Amino acid sequence: MSNLNIYKRQGFGEKSGFKGKSALLMVDFVNGFCDPEYYGGGNIIDAIKRTRILLQTARELKIPIAHTRVVYESDGSNKGIFCEKVPGLERLTENAYISQIVDDLTPEPNEYVVRKTQASAFFGTGLVSWLIARNIETLVITGCTTSGCVRASVVDSMSYNYRTIVVTDCVGDRAIGPHEANLFDMQQKYADLYSADEVISKLKEQNPKVLSGKQ
Amino acid sequence: MSNLNIYKRQGFGEKSGFKGKSALLMVDFVNGFCDPEYYGGGNIIDAIKRTRILLQTARELKIPIAHTRVVYESDGSNKGIFCEKVPGLERLTENAYISQIVDDLTPEPNEYVVRKTQASAFFGTGLVSWLIARNIETLVITGCTTSGCVRASVVDSMSYNYRTIVVTDCVGDRAIGPHEANLFDMQQKYADLYSADEVISKLKEQNPKVLSGKQ
Amino acid sequence: MSNLNIYKRQGFGEKSGFKGKSALLMVDFVNGFCDPEYYGGGNIIDAIKRTRILLQTARELKIPIAHTRVVYESDGSNKGIFCEKVPGLERLTENAYISQIVDDLTPEPNEYVVRKTQASAFFGTGLVSWLIARNIETLVITGCTTSGCVRASVVDSMSYNYRTIVVTDCVGDRAIGPHEANLFDMQQKYADLYSADEVISKLKEQNPKVLSGKQ
Amino acid sequence: MSNLNIYKRQGFGEKSGFKGKSALLMVDFVNGFCDPEYYGGGNIIDAIKRTRILLQTARELKIPIAHTRVVYESDGSNKGIFCEKVPGLERLTENAYISQIVDDLTPEPNEYVVRKTQASAFFGTGLVSWLIARNIETLVITGCTTSGCVRASVVDSMSYNYRTIVVTDCVGDRAIGPHEANLFDMQQKYADLYSADEVISKLKEQNPKVLSGKQ
Repeated sequence: MSNLNIYKRQGFGEKSGFKGKSALLMVDFVNGFCDPEYYGGGNIIDAIKRTRILLQTARELKIPIAHTRVVYESDGSNKGIFCEKVPGLERLTENAYISQIVDDLTPEPNEYVVRKTQASAFFGTGLVSWLIARNIETLVITGCTTSGCVRASVVDSMSYNYRTIVVTDCVGDRAIGPHEANLFDMQQKYADLYSADEVISKLKEQNPKVLSGKQ
Repeated sequence: MSNLNIYKRQGFGEKSGFKGKSALLMVDFVNGFCDPEYYGGGNIIDAIKRTRILLQTARELKIPIAHTRVVYESDGSNKGIFCEKVPGLERLTENAYISQIVDDLTPEPNEYVVRKTQASAFFGTGLVSWLIARNIETLVITGCTTSGCVRASVVDSMSYNYRTIVVTDCVGDRAIGPHEANLFDMQQKYADLYSADEVISKLKEQNPKVLSGKQ
Repeated sequence: MSNLNIYKRQGFGEKSGFKGKSALLMVDFVNGFCDPEYYGGGNIIDAIKRTRILLQTARELKIPIAHTRVVYESDGSNKGIFCEKVPGLERLTENAYISQIVDDLTPEPNEYVVRKTQASAFFGTGLVSWLIARNIETLVITGCTTSGCVRASVVDSMSYNYRTIVVTDCVGDRAIGPHEANLFDMQQKYADLYSADEVISKLKEQNPKVLSGKQ
Repeated sequence: MSNLNIYKRQGFGEKSGFKGKSALLMVDFVNGFCDPEYYGGGNIIDAIKRTRILLQTARELKIPIAHTRVVYESDGSNKGIFCEKVPGLERLTENAYISQIVDDLTPEPNEYVVRKTQASAFFGTGLVSWLIARNIETLVITGCTTSGCVRASVVDSMSYNYRTIVVTDCVGDRAIGPHEANLFDMQQKYADLYSADEVISKLKEQNPKVLSGKQ
């Protein structure tokens, strides 16, 4: 029996869908994660290009937008076990080039830039409070890597009871095997998978007044 | 280039090791997760058998022990998005047969039984407070499923800065592909992989006085 | 200068108000906290009587309702520092009379009963996920004691960005000095103070359709 | 019956004491909280002076040290309900004079500076992970204000199961009534109260090797 059939037979993989207000989260699209000399490679550059289109729509629709960056103190005072497993991570400091968000997705004023030191965008950050203040029910997630910080953020998003959307062509990874394995896991248990085009259609349906200028 | 080489070249996969006091966490080894008619199958039964040996050693060495169960209220009052992705989960109630810990691993008095409703053993539970009270620095994790609640618990364990050990022959999954893909991810980024035999040796080294009766 | 003037001059004590959907939280109204032989006394009995009226309105208006109880494992496996500061707390176990919700406020099916071991209703519990699933923006808080578990829950509620309402005649404490001192602190920094009558009017305004049977 | 007698009769106010390794936390000793034109006044300046002595001892003893600052984004992107209750708080931005730690307590490299947006030093921050990485069992807390961010941090510290020490002459508040009322609450339920001199003696007892240069 295939993996898919095993999961289907046990009742996994249903949809949680879109509901209420949505926000857009872009995980760790920073220079160091789109450069194969650091933590990049694979399909991450493609994911950034697709995310740019989604971001533009989100801005037009006035959807709340958050970006994440991994940022450690430059004196090493808040390094932890993550930096023992992956020693170079501690170079991702406030002013380091590799920890700046990529040019294609530069945050605009009023977009929330979450500084984090762990995999999940929620762990030790103000993200859940920010979402609650905006009355969000659905969290659309893009970013990298699929098998790392995206997966960890998706699990927490679902655990807080957000309807969680992974945008399949807007998440990327340095290696394609883990990318695909994690899309499978997330779809079965934690999130719905949609393409950027599908998400754009959904968001426009949810926010017709904004587009027609009647807000 | 292989997945492993991509990760190695970027500095992933170092060891965080054992340090200080250890605790043993057994994730969701309940009847429903070792029965293929519910959420079981694959190599879960084998993982339970191996965990039994590890548990016995942990008890002899007086190592703090925690078990987890998924438990929802029987009136459905705390169902959430997880139960929309996997509708049957809500049957895991306090007194349901499928949510009882398996006979081979029945908790003894003073072992902590964590009731949870999300994937991670830490989310919305008292687990981190329990570990802090016991001055733990290393968390040894077994359970099921590797690609689900074990993975989620491992990510949180590392994020709290516990040195995290996944016992490769004491974690199991309903399907082997996701089991192996998640062992790869965890080893590269969040945890060290050890066999039960290796963990038993390490724990005995750390606790020589207990074994010789001089505690 | 009076305390109030010092705070006013520095810009404290503004209102955050009601907005969006409300939920009702009743903190630790259990037998042991309304009996002076255990942890009760003062104005707690009066607070329970007033809360009964508010609860009835909330039920009529179909407002989401949560209760909390302090519940420790009967084998002591999850005792912590709180039980060192207040040793008797560990007697509040699942089946103990003193940890049962008082008869006047017995939970109905579908009302969420939060089991907790710390002061705050949010710490180590599923409460924030429950609130997010119900799209709540305003949390109305009653319970006991004002200077203990109510205060701790209010601080967390505000920190998660819920507009937080303390119902002055529905919170009580074993001693009146701490009750009043904590109402002052909460009003200045974390929550708005309203009487039960005022809250009932506000909730009816927010939910006119339910009352007229048109839901 | 006095407040104290009511609490004593019900078993409150026991000691949790010092145990294991200690860390020092200094809450919000920033320029804006020692200036009565912003959020200062009362006995805060005195608390800073006493804390300077305690900090010097902690540095000599190589005890882990953390400072907190309230820091909001300058574009207002992470303002929340706290800024509705106390509108001026949003002026506490990364580079604002009022959010810099006071000269007497300037952090040294390797001391952890926690940026926070809520009352508790733990809420949405990396503090608990930092403490776990350092194997801390006892948290010594100073700062301001006693009735605000100190109280909130103390409640969370105890909830995570840290033995929590409030240094009575190293915490301060803009108004003395709330200062004293909160010392009472904390002593009864969450923390032990010690003077700076007593804490210095305790820390020296715990760390004799460091002082004698044998570390």
